[in-house]
Amino acid sequence: MSIVERLLEDSKEIWETFYTHPFVQGIGSGSLDHEKFKYYMIQDYLYLIDYAKVFAVGAAKAFDKDTMREFSAYTDSLMNGEMEIHRSYMKRLGITEEEAEHCPAALDNISYTSYMLRIAYEGGPADVMAAILSCALSYEEIACRLKAQYPGCWEHPFFGEWVSGYISEEYHEANQKLIALMERLADGFDERQIARLSEVFKNCSRYEAAFWDMGWEMKK
Amino acid sequence: MSIVERLLEDSKEIWETFYTHPFVQGIGSGSLDHEKFKYYMIQDYLYLIDYAKVFAVGAAKAFDKDTMREFSAYTDSLMNGEMEIHRSYMKRLGITEEEAEHCPAALDNISYTSYMLRIAYEGGPADVMAAILSCALSYEEIACRLKAQYPGCWEHPFFGEWVSGYISEEYHEANQKLIALMERLADGFDERQIARLSEVFKNCSRYEAAFWDMGWEMKK
Amino acid sequence: MSIVERLLEDSKEIWETFYTHPFVQGIGSGSLDHEKFKYYMIQDYLYLIDYAKVFAVGAAKAFDKDTMREFSAYTDSLMNGEMEIHRSYMKRLGITEEEAEHCPAALDNISYTSYMLRIAYEGGPADVMAAILSCALSYEEIACRLKAQYPGCWEHPFFGEWVSGYISEEYHEANQKLIALMERLADGFDERQIARLSEVFKNCSRYEAAFWDMGWEMKK
Amino acid sequence: MSIVERLLEDSKEIWETFYTHPFVQGIGSGSLDHEKFKYYMIQDYLYLIDYAKVFAVGAAKAFDKDTMREFSAYTDSLMNGEMEIHRSYMKRLGITEEEAEHCPAALDNISYTSYMLRIAYEGGPADVMAAILSCALSYEEIACRLKAQYPGCWEHPFFGEWVSGYISEEYHEANQKLIALMERLADGFDERQIARLSEVFKNCSRYEAAFWDMGWEMKK
Repeated sequence: MSIVERLLEDSKEIWETFYTHPFVQGIGSGSLDHEKFKYYMIQDYLYLIDYAKVFAVGAAKAFDKDTMREFSAYTDSLMNGEMEIHRSYMKRLGITEEEAEHCPAALDNISYTSYMLRIAYEGGPADVMAAILSCALSYEEIACRLKAQYPGCWEHPFFGEWVSGYISEEYHEANQKLIALMERLADGFDERQIARLSEVFKNCSRYEAAFWDMGWEMKK
Repeated sequence: MSIVERLLEDSKEIWETFYTHPFVQGIGSGSLDHEKFKYYMIQDYLYLIDYAKVFAVGAAKAFDKDTMREFSAYTDSLMNGEMEIHRSYMKRLGITEEEAEHCPAALDNISYTSYMLRIAYEGGPADVMAAILSCALSYEEIACRLKAQYPGCWEHPFFGEWVSGYISEEYHEANQKLIALMERLADGFDERQIARLSEVFKNCSRYEAAFWDMGWEMKK
Repeated sequence: MSIVERLLEDSKEIWETFYTHPFVQGIGSGSLDHEKFKYYMIQDYLYLIDYAKVFAVGAAKAFDKDTMREFSAYTDSLMNGEMEIHRSYMKRLGITEEEAEHCPAALDNISYTSYMLRIAYEGGPADVMAAILSCALSYEEIACRLKAQYPGCWEHPFFGEWVSGYISEEYHEANQKLIALMERLADGFDERQIARLSEVFKNCSRYEAAFWDMGWEMKK
Repeated sequence: MSIVERLLEDSKEIWETFYTHPFVQGIGSGSLDHEKFKYYMIQDYLYLIDYAKVFAVGAAKAFDKDTMREFSAYTDSLMNGEMEIHRSYMKRLGITEEEAEHCPAALDNISYTSYMLRIAYEGGPADVMAAILSCALSYEEIACRLKAQYPGCWEHPFFGEWVSGYISEEYHEANQKLIALMERLADGFDERQIARLSEVFKNCSRYEAAFWDMGWEMKK
């Protein structure tokens, strides 16, 4: 069992709750309240700014230049490049990036990013990757499941763009690179060290679940 | 007096030693031993990898998205983009990037980058900038002084490319952006805080001087 | 208005919710379910271990020896010295320290300590103090309010020891030292910097409120 | 071969230079210039303040409470407790702690502590220990060698106290605890991870050698 298979195995019960979550189901069925989606989209935009910081700490913690390159390319692409899905929705929803950046982050949002950043500062590059991975991989898995469950959902006039983005070949390939990096960084780890990575991945998965709740309840 | 003027003023005696340093003078006069230059070039290449890490910590420490963008763009351009001067010389000197990365860093080199990284982890974004600035600005100043002293030095068949790189408009503009960022990040600082930035800048200037010594003596 | 007065002023609405919280009121009236209290006590014990880490980062971030001394004395007294209230209750409740340490921390607990640790790693000694202060000061204020509302509550056979601990002269003096340190560390800060401290203090106050909720609901 | 045996083996050539260093030999023979010793003593005092910070970061990075306890006890004993050898010599040499704290740290001193702190912020608790160990263990070994070479040196009216402190049973036991902690923290590490610890230990050993040079030359 590869490291990532192990991480997924240990958190699979939590992941099951993602697919059946009313927020996620609402994206698939097209019935999700646009106000909830707008709220979520702004929070997710704020989340990505701190998520980029986690990659930045990863670049600083890297043991070799290839790892630095990968982490820093992600930070830069999140900050200077494209967050196409978010920009496109924010335009459609009539929110400027400026407005989004001045919205207060919900406490559940701060909790999740603070946990990742704490792990990043405390740990090494493998810990950083374990923290990053739950968000990146679960979005792909959620979108693929939605497409299987609601075959036309990726063409939905409003939510289709979200589904399309995360089932895209491009997103899949980016995730495959993250998986390969996780395997490389944890190469040679003993059980104690792998258990620690699994705990980080599991906690992030719990925060993913809390993030969907937050979107559904439009907390704070 | 702007913040950067203050930093430069407090370290000006150390900076004077840069211009008269035999290594620097040798670049200007064209008399520098190529072996010394090769040794320096490899050490400087290794230095830049850790220098990129300092920017990465800066991105993680940033209080706003613009600062993150600037720091992360530097990290990425150092890691994924171009270090043209270094690549070009390494090609001419017959060293591959691979070989350079496997050369051991000299202790003086490790000392300088460890100091910057320690300051970056300990402090905020303004401290990170104060640590970054001495290297960035002194190279421009050194190259300009050399051009004034040895008018044709930028056309020298071997050392001209080094001088040309650091007197270029492109390098000047990149530095102006760093200066503007330093001023912005230290805006509103009181004397105690500015004195701390000045100490960081001065220590980095002392490490710059030690780096030229290291090149000259081909230490370790 | 001193810095600490400002922090308290900006968070006073959140603090009002502490005093009326059913968990807190239950301590004062003596009606709190012992199972809830036991659950809370174990979580609070786990919290203090990470709280000690925040002080440890504070010691590492200190600009002077006196600040280091104060931060490190707290870490050491939390780790090697006494957590009398906790030890005494754990004995009464039949939990060993060993057992408590192996209980899983609730996600709300992890969120709070991760936020403080993230702030500690990101910021300077003043940020560390702003993160530490909400917990330390609110416990004294809560206990004093309970004593005013329920005059005999500090003598209650079960909950009296909790109230007594936090209304004690000893606890008050320790807090006065923390307040003095906060004022000293933020001396000379401009409005932008103070606003940042206030945001940290406010977020920690929100986490305090969530911690009482967690105790009441025995979450996770 | 235990982890610590491996670290010592990999750095043994550097360690040989400690014993024959003119500064160290001068302590043993009693011929060392008191001005050099005074200079060294002040620098070593400044060093210990940052050394305590390395332990503090170790406490924050610890995975378990016992490790936290050990690291924080060291920080606290360095900061709040005794640095008897230093205090006693400073008294004899007519320097107050206050004066010592206001002496500028030599660049070689800053380099060494910055390297340790950088490693501490970048790595985990095992890295912190590898950084701490070279100083702690080499002082005992140096003092024991001096006693073997100059049998009466521990009774020398001026330098005897230095030798006595580091050959004491108390110092030996403290070191044995650090060794046990290193072994425990690196338990299960693979060759790649051990090689990294060895590199940290070796670099610190190189900084130890540079520190003796600094004392001998009364640099800066």
